[in-house]
Amino acid sequence: MLKILWINPVGTDHYDAPFLEGFNQIKREDTTVDVVSLKNGPTHLEFMYYETMVLPEILSIVMKADREGYDAAVIGCFYDLGLHEAREVSEKMAIVAPEEACTALAATMGHRFSIIVTRDKCVPQMAKNLAEYGLNHKLASFKSLAIGVDDLHQDDETTYRRMLQCAKEAVVQDGAEVIVLGCTIQFGFYQRLQEEVGVPVIDAVAAPFKYAEYAADINRQFEWRHSKKCYYESPTDLAMQIK
Amino acid sequence: MLKILWINPVGTDHYDAPFLEGFNQIKREDTTVDVVSLKNGPTHLEFMYYETMVLPEILSIVMKADREGYDAAVIGCFYDLGLHEAREVSEKMAIVAPEEACTALAATMGHRFSIIVTRDKCVPQMAKNLAEYGLNHKLASFKSLAIGVDDLHQDDETTYRRMLQCAKEAVVQDGAEVIVLGCTIQFGFYQRLQEEVGVPVIDAVAAPFKYAEYAADINRQFEWRHSKKCYYESPTDLAMQIK
Amino acid sequence: MLKILWINPVGTDHYDAPFLEGFNQIKREDTTVDVVSLKNGPTHLEFMYYETMVLPEILSIVMKADREGYDAAVIGCFYDLGLHEAREVSEKMAIVAPEEACTALAATMGHRFSIIVTRDKCVPQMAKNLAEYGLNHKLASFKSLAIGVDDLHQDDETTYRRMLQCAKEAVVQDGAEVIVLGCTIQFGFYQRLQEEVGVPVIDAVAAPFKYAEYAADINRQFEWRHSKKCYYESPTDLAMQIK
Amino acid sequence: MLKILWINPVGTDHYDAPFLEGFNQIKREDTTVDVVSLKNGPTHLEFMYYETMVLPEILSIVMKADREGYDAAVIGCFYDLGLHEAREVSEKMAIVAPEEACTALAATMGHRFSIIVTRDKCVPQMAKNLAEYGLNHKLASFKSLAIGVDDLHQDDETTYRRMLQCAKEAVVQDGAEVIVLGCTIQFGFYQRLQEEVGVPVIDAVAAPFKYAEYAADINRQFEWRHSKKCYYESPTDLAMQIK
Amino acid sequence: MLKILWINPVGTDHYDAPFLEGFNQIKREDTTVDVVSLKNGPTHLEFMYYETMVLPEILSIVMKADREGYDAAVIGCFYDLGLHEAREVSEKMAIVAPEEACTALAATMGHRFSIIVTRDKCVPQMAKNLAEYGLNHKLASFKSLAIGVDDLHQDDETTYRRMLQCAKEAVVQDGAEVIVLGCTIQFGFYQRLQEEVGVPVIDAVAAPFKYAEYAADINRQFEWRHSKKCYYESPTDLAMQIK
Amino acid sequence: MLKILWINPVGTDHYDAPFLEGFNQIKREDTTVDVVSLKNGPTHLEFMYYETMVLPEILSIVMKADREGYDAAVIGCFYDLGLHEAREVSEKMAIVAPEEACTALAATMGHRFSIIVTRDKCVPQMAKNLAEYGLNHKLASFKSLAIGVDDLHQDDETTYRRMLQCAKEAVVQDGAEVIVLGCTIQFGFYQRLQEEVGVPVIDAVAAPFKYAEYAADINRQFEWRHSKKCYYESPTDLAMQIK
Repeated sequence: MLKILWINPVGTDHYDAPFLEGFNQIKREDTTVDVVSLKNGPTHLEFMYYETMVLPEILSIVMKADREGYDAAVIGCFYDLGLHEAREVSEKMAIVAPEEACTALAATMGHRFSIIVTRDKCVPQMAKNLAEYGLNHKLASFKSLAIGVDDLHQDDETTYRRMLQCAKEAVVQDGAEVIVLGCTIQFGFYQRLQEEVGVPVIDAVAAPFKYAEYAADINRQFEWRHSKKCYYESPTDLAMQIK
Repeated sequence: MLKILWINPVGTDHYDAPFLEGFNQIKREDTTVDVVSLKNGPTHLEFMYYETMVLPEILSIVMKADREGYDAAVIGCFYDLGLHEAREVSEKMAIVAPEEACTALAATMGHRFSIIVTRDKCVPQMAKNLAEYGLNHKLASFKSLAIGVDDLHQDDETTYRRMLQCAKEAVVQDGAEVIVLGCTIQFGFYQRLQEEVGVPVIDAVAAPFKYAEYAADINRQFEWRHSKKCYYESPTDLAMQIK
Repeated sequence: MLKILWINPVGTDHYDAPFLEGFNQIKREDTTVDVVSLKNGPTHLEFMYYETMVLPEILSIVMKADREGYDAAVIGCFYDLGLHEAREVSEKMAIVAPEEACTALAATMGHRFSIIVTRDKCVPQMAKNLAEYGLNHKLASFKSLAIGVDDLHQDDETTYRRMLQCAKEAVVQDGAEVIVLGCTIQFGFYQRLQEEVGVPVIDAVAAPFKYAEYAADINRQFEWRHSKKCYYESPTDLAMQIK
Repeated sequence: MLKILWINPVGTDHYDAPFLEGFNQIKREDTTVDVVSLKNGPTHLEFMYYETMVLPEILSIVMKADREGYDAAVIGCFYDLGLHEAREVSEKMAIVAPEEACTALAATMGHRFSIIVTRDKCVPQMAKNLAEYGLNHKLASFKSLAIGVDDLHQDDETTYRRMLQCAKEAVVQDGAEVIVLGCTIQFGFYQRLQEEVGVPVIDAVAAPFKYAEYAADINRQFEWRHSKKCYYESPTDLAMQIK
Repeated sequence: MLKILWINPVGTDHYDAPFLEGFNQIKREDTTVDVVSLKNGPTHLEFMYYETMVLPEILSIVMKADREGYDAAVIGCFYDLGLHEAREVSEKMAIVAPEEACTALAATMGHRFSIIVTRDKCVPQMAKNLAEYGLNHKLASFKSLAIGVDDLHQDDETTYRRMLQCAKEAVVQDGAEVIVLGCTIQFGFYQRLQEEVGVPVIDAVAAPFKYAEYAADINRQFEWRHSKKCYYESPTDLAMQIK
Repeated sequence: MLKILWINPVGTDHYDAPFLEGFNQIKREDTTVDVVSLKNGPTHLEFMYYETMVLPEILSIVMKADREGYDAAVIGCFYDLGLHEAREVSEKMAIVAPEEACTALAATMGHRFSIIVTRDKCVPQMAKNLAEYGLNHKLASFKSLAIGVDDLHQDDETTYRRMLQCAKEAVVQDGAEVIVLGCTIQFGFYQRLQEEVGVPVIDAVAAPFKYAEYAADINRQFEWRHSKKCYYESPTDLAMQIK
């Protein structure tokens, strides 16, 4: 039995129930999944300031889950905030992040992929992550919806239209062979988009979740998870809390 | 039910039974796995010439498996030969390769990893793959056993001693935080090595096999597999055979 | 006397006579050149599958030519298929490939060059070669004719018009200072194009042929050819043939 | 009059007085400098977890200083934590970070430089920063003192001996032409080391402080500071605080 | 007291007085600045040939200034000609160059910057410098005014209009967050442009001058200047002159 | 008939006769070669200052040769000084440089090559060239003889012994498969070294000379030489001379 935790790193439980429902439809039979969100925090993380504010609570959740025996946790924001910090504080639980999981997958599916983001503001941080992951040479383009996270589901049809336009430009003008949806709140669109555009469209929720099952499985069976040598060496004082 | 095919791309069925037995111990309950080897060919692929000779039969197996409804196939050699060719000829079946799968995994487990190869001869081709995958900056070193593929299991203790020496040098001198075994025939050693060296040691058989389950699952559920646009566009004449 | 072999790696001798005639017009006095094509195979190599199918026969030709004392051989397809495999099996004969020779030359002739390809399908493989050759930073753009190899000489005027349009866009919009014709079957156009566009246009047949003369000369005089240490170490069993 | 704030991002005011004294010796006549440390937090930031814990208070200090009219602030840790977050929340005050300032300087002073760090644990994060700054190709090596931050001034002579050994190895074996001290708490050693080794040794306190004067000056005179477009666009809700 | 020398590396003293006047308005109180131009040479350096012709006199000026006790010198052309040669011949005086100083600054001010050049001819040399400085990944674009150096101040309004167009395209189409003026003779425009475009615009005269003050200060106080080991090792025979 | 000019860019004609004799032994029948040296200048170019001093005369020779109808010229120093400047001033004559020609060749001959230099001082400039040529990833190592240019032929046996040691270390420790001699004055050693070490050893005189024949041939037959668009656009005033 694999135990997976999905962390919605925002101060609203608005997405917890629909995400859980979605995971239960796509999970392995032997997977148990829980979804949590934060007690405090904004409804989105478009600014680095917001990421800073929520990261302590995220790490607290990670440490607790690690002690409780989860096999893997996903910090569910495409900024991949806290990925390395969480690996540092986690002794045994694998840590998965959407951009890392989605782009690694996309890199195996074609020569170039494009990432559809909510706003241009997202590009620098995601581009830096991508460079660190070594996949810059696989990027066809970032395409911006120019729709803020909180507005993505205001009118699904409007969002879809804009998404379709971005995806088509990516494929026709930029040479993308694969599309990655660069925000977890862009959920619910991948299937229709994939059919209409004719190339794979990777969903930022389903892909890291399924990758987490793989990570959990090899963690449990082979103890393959982040090395505790050097980079992810655990802090001496994990109980430290800033008042 | 996921259907996976492991291809031992050599002209001997010597490893088919032990590999199948191994997969049955580590597979998901809902996975069916088959192992095949080639009718013709050498017992190892240390030379590019040998790769060239066996690739037509590999692609023939891939096309047949694709028609038979396998969800994913692994071409089981760390040279990742035929990876892109197989994706080109495969309409629906995902293709997995050991170096791609193992190094992508290792990249998430620490700052740097080392790859233990059989002979120096392997390094150039594997280094080129790694550059293409974008992971050069994650490589601590290649370490060579100086033991040919056919001799890896001549005397397991000798091989293990040499492997241990390579792994320790990688960790202590080169700064590796993770070890990757760079040949599928280095199977059977990872666990003991991992315990003795104290960092994760990724096995070149188990890791791509488990990754193939992940690839098969998302292929079946979401139709996420290599894009057929451009790079992996299918050949017009798949029936072409050179006499 | 330098002995050079040009291999048309396709299953038609359609181009053998015109190529030989062309070489005899541009060769050094002390060069002897032969042109061969394959007994089997497709008329073009637009797909990786086709490359896989013809490579064994190409290597067989290479080994024979090596034994017969040729100084250099060119495998005449801009995909540079078999370049490294041929060096592995060749003991003394230098191996030349069109993309490697043309782009190395173009890199000395200006700040950026563009490559005109037949179809977008060609770009990924050629881009990977270019990255491996270290010349990505010299590339202004790939421009696609959207004309398949077999149709390049259907109507030379149509092909030329399209080629001219691509070259002008490359120079004016992409900043190319040099144009490379990215297919050997684009022969016959470079001179007119060069005059009309006003920048050098490198032909994918003439350039590697002349480079082969240089390679043959230094091979014969100084024994400068691919090293047999490590990467191009010869296979133990060169006689191996897959039935 | 330039106003500069130096932030010691640790929960001790142990270094505040000596740092202030040092700054007053090296500052421009028209500079006013203040030094602050945190109310809460550990005595060092060797772990990413500790960085996460102190960053909210750092950003709070930055925002306050920005409102109070400081021209520039330095977040005084060689991990460069919070550099981009601070630029996001700062409207008018320039933000300076030790690794960014020291390595940019070192890159102008020779072909290659080495960075002397306290422990190997520091390398991955600093290496990632360096890659992001574009200076990987200027790095000769990281050299580790294997002395924790809290112990650097336990016995200055021991620390100096070890530092000297690292610097000499960097120069003689690794080809370093410049040495960078990769921790602000390595203060007090640069001058003696520079004289003994015979190459420039950049101090992680003095260099960013002097750079901050330059940044403050051009900020005040020309309004040259981080752009508020896109990457450093200010958060909508700067008053947000997580309880 | 800091002593700085600005070298206008052209054979006209046309810009000496206005530059000096400008420096006196923006300099530190404790800075003394001199401006010199060449006895011989063209009025601009658009061609590498012209750079070659003026470099011996520039180095002669540098050596003289070094002996006279200047703390820093700027070779005032955005091609950064003679930067490394000057460091080689200078024993104690720091050497500053416009492209190096401006792009290092711009890299700290946003995710991407664009450089506005006079003519396309400038791009290759500046692009090579940028690659060497490690900042290619920070470049949004080069934008060309298509106005020669000698014509930049023929009609300031025309130049400004063209500059504004380039800057707006850089920001809107290319994603630039910062603009760099890529020629010292583009002086006099940055302030108006910065206000109208809304992102920082770095002037190629003021920025390196202020950087030179910083370089002079740390040179004088800490002896931090280019290392004399290896790359910048002084010539044996500094008195050598070619007749 | 091909006309080639070899320029010894030093103020001594000491090497002119032996070089000419060497060229006459290895040249094509239809090649005419001349060797010139400078009227003024040092006996070697170990310092950038010396390069600066001799470059004007080199360009003057290049322009004259271009007018006189030479097909190609080689500027015979492994620093590749003046390569781009000479292309700018040359209308029709191809320009060849030793490091560019030798490393492009070595890159086709194995996975990695090492360059044997006279002194460490050479490394930074040659490393920058190599990065610009795109071949950093092919470099195994620079190995320094620690023998100045003027002393290379003081005692050939001593030089050879040191060269052999460097080459062996490069092959055994650094993984070099090819050796490049990184100074034209290292002539006379390649053959013996090649036989003793067992990998190709590229001579810095013979290789660029033979490449120049290739360049001259394609220049004459196809007008393939450096593009005059943009980067190598000719100066307006080629007659400009600094008094």
